[in-house]
Amino acid sequence: MIKVGIVGATGYTGSELLRLLVLHPEVEITVVTSRTEKGRPVADMFPHVRGYLDLPFTDPSVDELSDCDLIFFATPHGVAQSMMSEFINSGLRTIDLSGDFRLKDVDVWESWYDQKHACPELIEQAEYGLPEIYRDQIRDAKLVACPGCFPTVIQLGFLPLIEKGLVQTDRLIADAKTGTSGAGRAAKVGMLLSECSDSFKAYGVSGHRHLPEMEQILSEANGSPVKVTFVPHLVPMIRGIEATLYIEPKADSGLSLEQAQAIYEERYKDEPFVDVMPLGSLPETRTVKGSNMCRIALHQQPGSNTIIVLSVIDNLVKGSSGQAIQNMNLMFGFEENTGLQQVALMP
Amino acid sequence: MIKVGIVGATGYTGSELLRLLVLHPEVEITVVTSRTEKGRPVADMFPHVRGYLDLPFTDPSVDELSDCDLIFFATPHGVAQSMMSEFINSGLRTIDLSGDFRLKDVDVWESWYDQKHACPELIEQAEYGLPEIYRDQIRDAKLVACPGCFPTVIQLGFLPLIEKGLVQTDRLIADAKTGTSGAGRAAKVGMLLSECSDSFKAYGVSGHRHLPEMEQILSEANGSPVKVTFVPHLVPMIRGIEATLYIEPKADSGLSLEQAQAIYEERYKDEPFVDVMPLGSLPETRTVKGSNMCRIALHQQPGSNTIIVLSVIDNLVKGSSGQAIQNMNLMFGFEENTGLQQVALMP
Amino acid sequence: MIKVGIVGATGYTGSELLRLLVLHPEVEITVVTSRTEKGRPVADMFPHVRGYLDLPFTDPSVDELSDCDLIFFATPHGVAQSMMSEFINSGLRTIDLSGDFRLKDVDVWESWYDQKHACPELIEQAEYGLPEIYRDQIRDAKLVACPGCFPTVIQLGFLPLIEKGLVQTDRLIADAKTGTSGAGRAAKVGMLLSECSDSFKAYGVSGHRHLPEMEQILSEANGSPVKVTFVPHLVPMIRGIEATLYIEPKADSGLSLEQAQAIYEERYKDEPFVDVMPLGSLPETRTVKGSNMCRIALHQQPGSNTIIVLSVIDNLVKGSSGQAIQNMNLMFGFEENTGLQQVALMP
Amino acid sequence: MIKVGIVGATGYTGSELLRLLVLHPEVEITVVTSRTEKGRPVADMFPHVRGYLDLPFTDPSVDELSDCDLIFFATPHGVAQSMMSEFINSGLRTIDLSGDFRLKDVDVWESWYDQKHACPELIEQAEYGLPEIYRDQIRDAKLVACPGCFPTVIQLGFLPLIEKGLVQTDRLIADAKTGTSGAGRAAKVGMLLSECSDSFKAYGVSGHRHLPEMEQILSEANGSPVKVTFVPHLVPMIRGIEATLYIEPKADSGLSLEQAQAIYEERYKDEPFVDVMPLGSLPETRTVKGSNMCRIALHQQPGSNTIIVLSVIDNLVKGSSGQAIQNMNLMFGFEENTGLQQVALMP
Repeated sequence: MIKVGIVGATGYTGSELLRLLVLHPEVEITVVTSRTEKGRPVADMFPHVRGYLDLPFTDPSVDELSDCDLIFFATPHGVAQSMMSEFINSGLRTIDLSGDFRLKDVDVWESWYDQKHACPELIEQAEYGLPEIYRDQIRDAKLVACPGCFPTVIQLGFLPLIEKGLVQTDRLIADAKTGTSGAGRAAKVGMLLSECSDSFKAYGVSGHRHLPEMEQILSEANGSPVKVTFVPHLVPMIRGIEATLYIEPKADSGLSLEQAQAIYEERYKDEPFVDVMPLGSLPETRTVKGSNMCRIALHQQPGSNTIIVLSVIDNLVKGSSGQAIQNMNLMFGFEENTGLQQVALMP
Repeated sequence: MIKVGIVGATGYTGSELLRLLVLHPEVEITVVTSRTEKGRPVADMFPHVRGYLDLPFTDPSVDELSDCDLIFFATPHGVAQSMMSEFINSGLRTIDLSGDFRLKDVDVWESWYDQKHACPELIEQAEYGLPEIYRDQIRDAKLVACPGCFPTVIQLGFLPLIEKGLVQTDRLIADAKTGTSGAGRAAKVGMLLSECSDSFKAYGVSGHRHLPEMEQILSEANGSPVKVTFVPHLVPMIRGIEATLYIEPKADSGLSLEQAQAIYEERYKDEPFVDVMPLGSLPETRTVKGSNMCRIALHQQPGSNTIIVLSVIDNLVKGSSGQAIQNMNLMFGFEENTGLQQVALMP
Repeated sequence: MIKVGIVGATGYTGSELLRLLVLHPEVEITVVTSRTEKGRPVADMFPHVRGYLDLPFTDPSVDELSDCDLIFFATPHGVAQSMMSEFINSGLRTIDLSGDFRLKDVDVWESWYDQKHACPELIEQAEYGLPEIYRDQIRDAKLVACPGCFPTVIQLGFLPLIEKGLVQTDRLIADAKTGTSGAGRAAKVGMLLSECSDSFKAYGVSGHRHLPEMEQILSEANGSPVKVTFVPHLVPMIRGIEATLYIEPKADSGLSLEQAQAIYEERYKDEPFVDVMPLGSLPETRTVKGSNMCRIALHQQPGSNTIIVLSVIDNLVKGSSGQAIQNMNLMFGFEENTGLQQVALMP
Repeated sequence: MIKVGIVGATGYTGSELLRLLVLHPEVEITVVTSRTEKGRPVADMFPHVRGYLDLPFTDPSVDELSDCDLIFFATPHGVAQSMMSEFINSGLRTIDLSGDFRLKDVDVWESWYDQKHACPELIEQAEYGLPEIYRDQIRDAKLVACPGCFPTVIQLGFLPLIEKGLVQTDRLIADAKTGTSGAGRAAKVGMLLSECSDSFKAYGVSGHRHLPEMEQILSEANGSPVKVTFVPHLVPMIRGIEATLYIEPKADSGLSLEQAQAIYEERYKDEPFVDVMPLGSLPETRTVKGSNMCRIALHQQPGSNTIIVLSVIDNLVKGSSGQAIQNMNLMFGFEENTGLQQVALMP
């Protein structure tokens, strides 16, 4: 049983940590912080945890949190980096769900986030929290930088062929679609039901912060630079991301769809949270709603070499809070799927 | 550990039993039947249970099911009654999620369902599966008739004041709103997303089959006949029922809102799945989505004696499959909340 | 051809005026104001009017608007009253879509809106813009106070029986359900798609500003005070209001459903925008989506005297901007349905 | 004023023709057919046209329809071809909204539709009803084959660069997303709100009937064969299609984004129903909901040559019934935008 604190639990990644952790058999939530809601019972703001959690929001100070074995940062970017040194120096282990420590090149970070990084000295020791690649490094990490939601679903979809060096790395296209919870719980006109329901649109077409992250990880997996064309879209649904990936095999690879399928099945056969579906499957986001699973299916069209990969996750679970708990399980030696066995809510 | 069979698992109450039971620590699902899908892996039709359940659909014969300790009927009305005698005679215990055994008066049943009842002799020994009233009777039942979704949310909302004899029983109004999953998984034009999304309507205004059920139970609780005006509506959402109940206290009762609140809190204080919220609360259906909870809040408008009760459930959980499992837990001596501790999926 | 100005066109009632007026054959929109968006092309904010309107937002000053024949106020409450004297004194005719001039009793207004009324001297000459009652007065009005969306749909549903004095006026219940556009275009957490999609809830149960408005008008129609129990609910859809009305006929009235139906048909037989549907009809909000129609259907349940009235409108059309244009047509002697013949967008 | 008949008006393209034609100033609808609904008032099935159309459904016989100046076929594929000879021989002009006469190569048609074509002799004289390419041919056509919804939005998005011969024609990718009304009004489990709301998925990934259609037209426009990778997806909304198109300019073309933008603006500058938005725009499907407009925007990502085209239409208007009426206007010498000036319903 470990004691856990959550910094910034008024947003969706925070409330999703609450949903999953109140039932985790190895965890006791001891501190939940929010500057704006200080003193208010957490279950008053989030009635779905009425009866499961009897704590008020408190201030996010190291004092309050120092008894914890683990701190989750469920804060907007910029916050974790401003507090991280103090926490790490106090010997606390942390998992950051924001984008603060994902990019290894601080210049790239500062250019995409358009601000000075407050804690560049810790970037190097931050482990990227994608267990399907970095499982061993995560076990001993002091600071885990949880992947973004788009990078998670897209990287898992590209990874097996990238690692094998079988693809034209300048022709990767990721056409991704996300539910609205990916935009967070902040009040924005564009995210009102009246504005984005019964409609569909692309956004961030000229450049999205998740792009350098996926190019960094895929380049490392490939051993040489990988270029991705990435277009996100907004779907009128709450949870879920679908990515349709277009992959050109190298001209001399002679890669067939069946060979690709075999490579995916082999790559993920021991992974508890990646499900390679049978050829011809059409994964729906609802088959992972509320669960930590990533489902993947491969396709090819007649007369075409292009491998089409369909990949779906719940952006709030495998795309953030569930994956964060998967990382926690690794860090503390619990079974990797502890507290993460939810069956998707379908219908 | 008990062995469980599910008859008719291709609909929503069936698939919801699967979602909840694959993780129930005291249950092994051993048979899942469907005449039309015989031989097909269950997880092929319901991908959310891939990895949790490795069974094909089989024929719904007593032979296949005779090793089970309990049979759930998740079938349309008319099916359970046609098979029930054989099952009960074989010594099997059963829980019927359909409307076949809810009404005690077979004439009333035949008039509302417009067909001959195939098994009137078992109606009497069927226990009505609302634990908040009939907990003790359910423990020893051979046949439990699970309540309808509307009767569950409406009865729990009316019950405390009805039992106390404090209300004008000819003036009860239940204005209820349900998500579309209440209509089942059958292909109907009116339930297409294109037809019922971004719209709202009343239906069944001239008479709904759930009306005699709620009048039967409430009359029994009141000790004399109770008349309900019941209007259901269709909400463009998948799960959830909200009922807004209008109650006129007896003229001489002098009942205040605070007294009513105290009566509700007292009545449900030991109930694991009824949450009486603080005065002024506005329960949202999403706070119970995927969970077995019923949340209730009371209101009164300035210058009015009318008590307004807001009551919400997930129609597929507390409104059917979750309540069925709650009944199962009682029948087999498990803790009543075993396997039913899901936190609502919110957002 | 008249010149029209719209004050505060960045909200939904404003943008809906734009949608309807750019095609109105007797209207030229000459000024569209917004303090915050001054200088920005209107079609840049509202791309659906690209090609129909080539104007920038300007400041809402009398100078800018003085050439107009008519000014619409599509502003939050409190704004129109602060500018109205100057406009009226300049000889401008105005239609206010906000709640500023609907209530005749300034004390009631100040109590419900919790602020001092800035222009009580004009309240008396403001005509209530419900043409089905006040058609003649509207023709000559200088200032029309457009009804709220809930009062419109509820009043039209109650009116025929109220006017006949046939109902128990202390037992009227209006259970209403609205789409999210009724909350306006302001950024609020509770109105995010992530928060209110796939969910349903009551709100404003302890008191809503539209209540005194409907009680004022219905009392006037009845000739003595009318008391309404009014509970609004939020539906996960953009447009549309449905009201389910519960009416107890006077004990000695002997009113049958068929008589009530005849009274409704007679009352509205010449109304261009009220459609009394055949007995047994179930009006859906989508059958009026984008149109200025109100559809009404009557029901009664077996063994009950209660008349159940179902009434639907599009809250942004008959519930605000369409009705405002209907009033404009009356004020300027155009055919009442000019520019308002849109067929509902269905599916 | 022409007399118009609609064959098969119980589906969405049929009901959309009704919505648009009842207000068309040059059209009188004289016959509406449906075998299954014969005798039923059309406005009983489609309440949104109550008051606009007072006709019953009749049998789809040539006798009934012979007085018409124009017949629309709003039928599933296979129907128009079985009746077409008789109609054409009777001297009737027709517009077919189904896929029966779109493909010029009957073998290709029979292979994709998996049935024998009943009327191959008329294929050649069928004009493809995309006015942006075939305006002149449409004017004199006896038989117009209206484009599919996906081909419309995708062809308009690819066309300007294809016509200029500037793109690598073996690398075109069309990632398209459609609302559910594209699947028609037939009762299918997969299209229930309970099944496809709050979810997202790809479908038809291994091959969709609209693919050969778009390759035929684009190849003709290009002057040599064009290969498209086309993946459709299902969005939980009623109307709208968005296509995100990935175009690789020819290596030696030196094509910049600004040049591409200029080519699009020039190509469509006189088109009443194609709106090339400013660079950087993000077209939402709701900006064309209920309207006949196609909105297009171009993008490019830093360090990439790929031109990304975003294209949106309402699948039931520009994607079928609106475009059919646009063709009718051309065939009968009306202004091309007559009856098609609806502003999109937004929000």
